[in-house]
Amino acid sequence: MDFKDLLTDRYAAKAFQDRTIPEETIQELLEMIRLAPSGLNIQPWRIKVVADRATKAELLALAPDEPQIGGCSHLLVFCAHTDWEAQTQKLGRTMKEKTVPDKIWGIVMGIAAEMATEPEDELYAWIVGNVYMAATYGLLGAEALGLDACPMTHFPPAEFSRVLGLPDAVKPVLLVAVGYAADEPKPKWRYPLSDILL
Amino acid sequence: MDFKDLLTDRYAAKAFQDRTIPEETIQELLEMIRLAPSGLNIQPWRIKVVADRATKAELLALAPDEPQIGGCSHLLVFCAHTDWEAQTQKLGRTMKEKTVPDKIWGIVMGIAAEMATEPEDELYAWIVGNVYMAATYGLLGAEALGLDACPMTHFPPAEFSRVLGLPDAVKPVLLVAVGYAADEPKPKWRYPLSDILL
Repeated sequence: MDFKDLLTDRYAAKAFQDRTIPEETIQELLEMIRLAPSGLNIQPWRIKVVADRATKAELLALAPDEPQIGGCSHLLVFCAHTDWEAQTQKLGRTMKEKTVPDKIWGIVMGIAAEMATEPEDELYAWIVGNVYMAATYGLLGAEALGLDACPMTHFPPAEFSRVLGLPDAVKPVLLVAVGYAADEPKPKWRYPLSDILL
Repeated sequence: MDFKDLLTDRYAAKAFQDRTIPEETIQELLEMIRLAPSGLNIQPWRIKVVADRATKAELLALAPDEPQIGGCSHLLVFCAHTDWEAQTQKLGRTMKEKTVPDKIWGIVMGIAAEMATEPEDELYAWIVGNVYMAATYGLLGAEALGLDACPMTHFPPAEFSRVLGLPDAVKPVLLVAVGYAADEPKPKWRYPLSDILL
């Protein structure tokens, strides 16, 4: 498939058929998401996959503006992992296991330590940005697999954490509902390049 | 091209050939980036394209850990537009021009107004996340166009703004160097799905 066509055809599905995505297709999608790049390769994302109808209904009740939460086949809850120290340690250990050269190891660990001293809001935004990269892989991966998806952020994260029993260090930042669309794409509009180029 | 292959083949190029990307290819890439999704379709990104050697050298001097800044053909400086009010007004005007139905218009404007009351760090992270989505389109678009790219965040944003003469309301958050790689990809490693699924 032509990549530009993939970008053009993708849209945020507003309604889904009552049809479940096969498990192997979901696994393919997750394997694509897993490949997303991240700064330092720290991979600061965690994902909760919600397929259970009762849980989706409970989440929908908390975010009633987003009917796709209840109607989709699978809801991917993209979370930011906010414990920088724990993640840095894990990254350091794993780089050693992967026999990353010592010089690279030192540079990466040095930058990670420096980032720990940044203003909290900058580090948090950086982490969230990386999670959105993984979510973008999810949106495009869904399209490539013949699925439809919708990203959503209008939901109460703390309530979602409670319902899903998420650990304290992870925070839901973006939902991606995946399934088979029951609507038609509306005309896509974007600002012209002249508006976005500086 | 198979989309999974595209994700597998993409890597962060650490060195570039001294070779300029044709202008029409850069335009194709920017047209792909322009298609990126965003919450409310607010498109909170601005991009500075730097191809001039002297400017790249000046930026490299400010971020000497990132030699790709000097060596790439084009440096895309992805900026977050942080003036929410101005962007909301522009979105509202443009939706009217695009004859978006009044009901949708009202919902979007309502959510935008609600988001303006969120803690500043949450709104900032949301904006940055959206910018990273556009940047992800850039990374994958480059790969699809036969180019190579490298995302980078280890640079001083205020100094970059000064050199590039950026308006106060936009803040550089991510660089994407684009060109023709002069290195070979190192083995790609990612955490197993069991580590990232909650």
